[in-house]
Amino acid sequence: MRATTIHAPFDVRVEDVPEPVVQLPTDAVVRVLRACICGSDLWAYRGGSARKPGQRIGHEFLGIVEETGSEVETVRRGDLVVAPFMWSDSVCDYCTEGLTTSCEHGGFWGAVGYDGGQGEAVRVPFADGTLVELPADAASDDRLLSALLTLSDVLGTGHHAALGAGVREGSTVAVVGDGAVGLCAVLAARRLGAERIVTLGRHEARTDLARRFGATDVVAERGAEAVEAVRDLTHGQGVRAVIEAVGTEQSMRTAVNIARDGGAIGFVGVPHGSATGLDLTVLFDRNIALRGGVAPVRTYIPELLPDILDGTLDPSPVFDLTVGIEGVPAGYKAMDQRTALKVLIAN
Amino acid sequence: MRATTIHAPFDVRVEDVPEPVVQLPTDAVVRVLRACICGSDLWAYRGGSARKPGQRIGHEFLGIVEETGSEVETVRRGDLVVAPFMWSDSVCDYCTEGLTTSCEHGGFWGAVGYDGGQGEAVRVPFADGTLVELPADAASDDRLLSALLTLSDVLGTGHHAALGAGVREGSTVAVVGDGAVGLCAVLAARRLGAERIVTLGRHEARTDLARRFGATDVVAERGAEAVEAVRDLTHGQGVRAVIEAVGTEQSMRTAVNIARDGGAIGFVGVPHGSATGLDLTVLFDRNIALRGGVAPVRTYIPELLPDILDGTLDPSPVFDLTVGIEGVPAGYKAMDQRTALKVLIAN
Repeated sequence: MRATTIHAPFDVRVEDVPEPVVQLPTDAVVRVLRACICGSDLWAYRGGSARKPGQRIGHEFLGIVEETGSEVETVRRGDLVVAPFMWSDSVCDYCTEGLTTSCEHGGFWGAVGYDGGQGEAVRVPFADGTLVELPADAASDDRLLSALLTLSDVLGTGHHAALGAGVREGSTVAVVGDGAVGLCAVLAARRLGAERIVTLGRHEARTDLARRFGATDVVAERGAEAVEAVRDLTHGQGVRAVIEAVGTEQSMRTAVNIARDGGAIGFVGVPHGSATGLDLTVLFDRNIALRGGVAPVRTYIPELLPDILDGTLDPSPVFDLTVGIEGVPAGYKAMDQRTALKVLIAN
Repeated sequence: MRATTIHAPFDVRVEDVPEPVVQLPTDAVVRVLRACICGSDLWAYRGGSARKPGQRIGHEFLGIVEETGSEVETVRRGDLVVAPFMWSDSVCDYCTEGLTTSCEHGGFWGAVGYDGGQGEAVRVPFADGTLVELPADAASDDRLLSALLTLSDVLGTGHHAALGAGVREGSTVAVVGDGAVGLCAVLAARRLGAERIVTLGRHEARTDLARRFGATDVVAERGAEAVEAVRDLTHGQGVRAVIEAVGTEQSMRTAVNIARDGGAIGFVGVPHGSATGLDLTVLFDRNIALRGGVAPVRTYIPELLPDILDGTLDPSPVFDLTVGIEGVPAGYKAMDQRTALKVLIAN
């Protein structure tokens, strides 16, 4: 089959690799219908996260179950399923509590020796714990498939950020970052009842989408000017629920500085310098909480899925470029150069 | 009157200063009965926090109201009152929400131009918002006065740490730091229903007191060995509710490393290097929350006071050395050299 591999910074290829097969009785093999490229894949693409040359890549996919191991009970051949961005066993202490990202047997797609999502098929460890069945008729609905694909990462990650920030009915929320996760955080915040949602971003197509998703205000300034603008919108006090969806020094610094005393920052941007932007003395003096991290999206799928199926939630517009498997390297290039927001891979 | 001043690192003096008087209609003057020296005063003493030469010092006191301004309504001459370690107006947005440390008109005792707690009397701004009346007969009960004095800082700060760490009925808690705040955090955690409380400390008199306050386990190791010991006590997983009551790089690093995935660190140690010990990538990967900061103890006094009055809570043993006002410099020396845990000043 064909699958995406990464060999060096800016060197992503589509190559022939062995077809996956069931290796353990808890495995399944999924033929990928839709996958996509994540902002966090760009860290690897740009050399910010080390990869072994030839390692697979991609951690968001949905598809059709092709084969299952003898112990797999919850999915079977022919089922349409979505996979969260990590696999998990569903039975350990952490999974039982919903923290599937800390699963004792969990792991990441594309880890050495494992398939990545950006390929034609994937061997799925702990299929019962990992995969979630979707309605079969969704397979023929392109828009719905795109929306459902966001359950594998960006939508659940946005939801995690909103929970970390403490968003609730009537909240005022600020979202630092206008990437797909930031945009999904806007959707998630609105879904949780936020009354006012301020998006920080200056890429007009993205902030327009943020408004469509529920943002009530857009702040296009950066740094100190952005902080001033947000404070102007909030009687000088700042925002109680801040979502940090980037992970850089500047984004975290902005998040801290626009937070209201006693508020919380829900952080889901993979830290790449953000520790430097996190002034602990400010957090201390102003009692700002920091909550978040890698999102246990597997846990959130059953909660978010019905809202996608009934149309309440439609994150599908985050995809603004579609490629086939052979077009994945071009997709990376487009996201790296910010000509695409998020690239869908349709097999 | 006599009051403590700080002139340079290790140069704390007791000097003649003007008697305080009511300057604003919202002021009161309180004659100090009991005050004490805080671990955070030691940062100034050791030169770790800058002070203007001659600045007053001390932020924990209780005493008798001597004079009140024309607008003061809730306390009057002769009342026994306790002051939290910051003054606050009780009417701004933050005070209304209970975050008195962010009061728009708040401030710290000992700030330039203001009296400190380690003196014979104090001018109290916003007396109605700041002071809390205590039962008059407590004035003749030495032990009770000591216990009540902890409401001004250490007990409320320990309570804030326990709340930040998410302590609840049945919790397993670890407390990093065996100073007075750490010990009060043990008391607070027990009060909130913690089932298991692990104290980290190797000063035997202090860890004995921790056990008396409710600690079920003591870990005397430091650094990596402490982490291993705590993990051994918790099936290798670590502790869901961690209290960081020191503020140094090592204490924060230990707090992070003993936290269970999905847990929280309640941090109340004034940051002095702790940012360096806070590995944001670990917090991210393991979904560990960080909550805390300067404790709004004014808000906690009405909740904690009844438990002290009925004897349920007795933090008075944190004081292990008593001096008069002239003995304050010796008290600092004793705390600096760790021959005293916490010094009571009886006027």
